[in-house]
Amino acid sequence: MTAGAEDARPDLSGWRVGVIGLGLMGRPMARNLARAGAGLVVHSRSPGPVEELAHEGMEPAADPAGVAAGTDTVILMLTDSAAVEAVVEGPRGLLEGLRPGALVIDMGTTAVPATRRLAVRVAEAGCAWVDAPVSGGTVAAEAGTLTVMAGGADADVERAMPLFRALGARITHVGGTGTGQVAKAANQVIVGLTIGAVAEALALARAAGADPARVRDAIRGGFAESRILELHGGRMVSGDFTPGARATVQLKDMRQAEQLAAELGVTLPAVSLGRELYESLVGRGDGGLDHAALYRLFETSPR
Amino acid sequence: MTAGAEDARPDLSGWRVGVIGLGLMGRPMARNLARAGAGLVVHSRSPGPVEELAHEGMEPAADPAGVAAGTDTVILMLTDSAAVEAVVEGPRGLLEGLRPGALVIDMGTTAVPATRRLAVRVAEAGCAWVDAPVSGGTVAAEAGTLTVMAGGADADVERAMPLFRALGARITHVGGTGTGQVAKAANQVIVGLTIGAVAEALALARAAGADPARVRDAIRGGFAESRILELHGGRMVSGDFTPGARATVQLKDMRQAEQLAAELGVTLPAVSLGRELYESLVGRGDGGLDHAALYRLFETSPR
Repeated sequence: MTAGAEDARPDLSGWRVGVIGLGLMGRPMARNLARAGAGLVVHSRSPGPVEELAHEGMEPAADPAGVAAGTDTVILMLTDSAAVEAVVEGPRGLLEGLRPGALVIDMGTTAVPATRRLAVRVAEAGCAWVDAPVSGGTVAAEAGTLTVMAGGADADVERAMPLFRALGARITHVGGTGTGQVAKAANQVIVGLTIGAVAEALALARAAGADPARVRDAIRGGFAESRILELHGGRMVSGDFTPGARATVQLKDMRQAEQLAAELGVTLPAVSLGRELYESLVGRGDGGLDHAALYRLFETSPR
Repeated sequence: MTAGAEDARPDLSGWRVGVIGLGLMGRPMARNLARAGAGLVVHSRSPGPVEELAHEGMEPAADPAGVAAGTDTVILMLTDSAAVEAVVEGPRGLLEGLRPGALVIDMGTTAVPATRRLAVRVAEAGCAWVDAPVSGGTVAAEAGTLTVMAGGADADVERAMPLFRALGARITHVGGTGTGQVAKAANQVIVGLTIGAVAEALALARAAGADPARVRDAIRGGFAESRILELHGGRMVSGDFTPGARATVQLKDMRQAEQLAAELGVTLPAVSLGRELYESLVGRGDGGLDHAALYRLFETSPR
C-alpha cells in the first residue's frame, strides 16, 4: 500500500497536467512534473507565479475552466476548502471546463466533508476525484520527496500514481474518497499535540531548575523520542521560532480536526485543548512564528 | 554530558555495592553489577528475591541499615517516594547505618521535592546523594542498556559513573540534585501525552471512515513519527494492550508531574487533562493494561 523512495522516477512524456495554485508548494511541484516530461497548464489567483512559470515554458490559463479544457488531469494545491470550492464550482471553475473522464487531484490540506461533497459533484460530471494531501513542506516539494496520502477508488489512485511518484518519496493509498484528507488530519493532530507535550515537559523541567537542553539530551533515544522532540524541541531550546510551519496554519488544522470530530459526534478532549492553546498563541500575536512557539505560553522564570 | 553505548564496560572488582529493591528492575540490575565484578549486598521488602540472589552468591541483608553498614555505595530501586522515605528514614533505615562518605543513588522514579529533601538529610549525615532514574524497562535493565538521567554534584555523579556504565547505554548528567528526577518527569509527560495525541488522531481517523492501520502507515516517516506512533500506535491498531508499562503507573507519573507543576506555580493544561484521561482509563477498570489502552476511551463505531 505504501510505495517507497526506491521506486524509479516515472517518465511523464505525453501527459498534459494542469496545476492550479502556484504558491510555495504548487510551484516546485509543477516544476518536478515538467522535469519528468509532462506538458503543464498552470493557473493561480495571483498573476506573478503564472508569468514566472510561463517564462519557463509552461502554458498559462486565464481561469480553472481553461486549465480543465486543456488537460486530462488537474492538480489543486490551494490554501483551504473555500479556495477549492471556488476553483471547482465558481464562475469559470473546473466544472465548466472538465473533459469527460478527467481526473481531479486535490493535494492541498482541506476539510473532509467538503472533499466528499466535491468528489460527488465531479463524479456527476463524468470525472474522477482523488484527495492526496502531502506532508514534508517546501523542502520536500522541491526535492520531490513529499509524503503523499491518497484517498479514492483503486483505479483512480492507480491512474494518479505516476504523478505521485514524480512528486513524492512515500505514497500510501489509505482508502476511499476523503481518507487521504482524514490521514492528513490525523497527522496534523499528532504534530500539534506532540508539540504541546514537548512544550509542557520542557517548561516543567525549566521551572523545576533543570536546563531544558540537557533534559532534551537525556531523554532522546528513549520512548519520548520523536521528530518533534528533535526538530521542534530544538527550536524551544534555542528560542528560534523562524517558521517552518506557522502557528496560524496549525490553528487552522486543529480547528478543522475539532470540527470534523464534532460532525462525527466524537469527543476528543486533547484536540479541543490543543485548538484553544494555539488560539491563545495566535491571539497574543505570535501566529507568524513556528508552531513550536507554543512553548512561549508555558515559559516562566526558574525559581 | 551524554555518554554513549560505545564506551567500554567497566571493571567493578573491588567495589562493594548495595541494592535495595529487588523487583523486575532491581534484580537484573544487581546481576549486571555482579557480572562486572562488584560484590553485592542486597535487601528487599519481600524475602523471595533476596533468597534468589543469595543463592547466586550475593550477600543478603536483613534491613537497609544492614546494607549501608556493609557497603560504600547503595542503589535504591523502589516503587515511589514513600518507599524511598521508609528505606532512608524509617526504623533500621539507611540513616542508621550509612558510613561517612557513602554514596546513595536513587534510580527509581520518585518525586522531585522528596528527592531534594532526602538529599539534604543524607548530606547532613556526611554522605552524598545522586538521583539517577532510568528508562527502557525490564528489557534494557537485563541487557544493561538503560537510559540513565543523573542529577547531583559533579564529583558524586563522576563517582557513580562506573556503576552507570555497567547498567546503561546512554548516561546523561542533567544538572544538580533532583534534575535527574526532573528529566524523568519530563520524559513521562511526553510519553503519556504523545500516547494521547496518537490515540485521539487514530480514533478520529476511524470515526471518519478510514482504517487506522493504513493511516498510521501513511503518516509514518513524516513529522508525526515517534517511538510512540511506532510501538503504542501499533498496539492501538492491533488492540493488544498487554503491558509494557501499565496505565496505573502512567497515572502515577502524570499525577506527580501535575503536583510538581502546582508546587512551582506553573499551569500545564495538557498535563492536567492527561492526568484526568488516565484517571478515567484506570477508573473504568483498565489500569492493568498498557498505557496505550488510552485509545479505548475514544474508540467509537465508524459511521
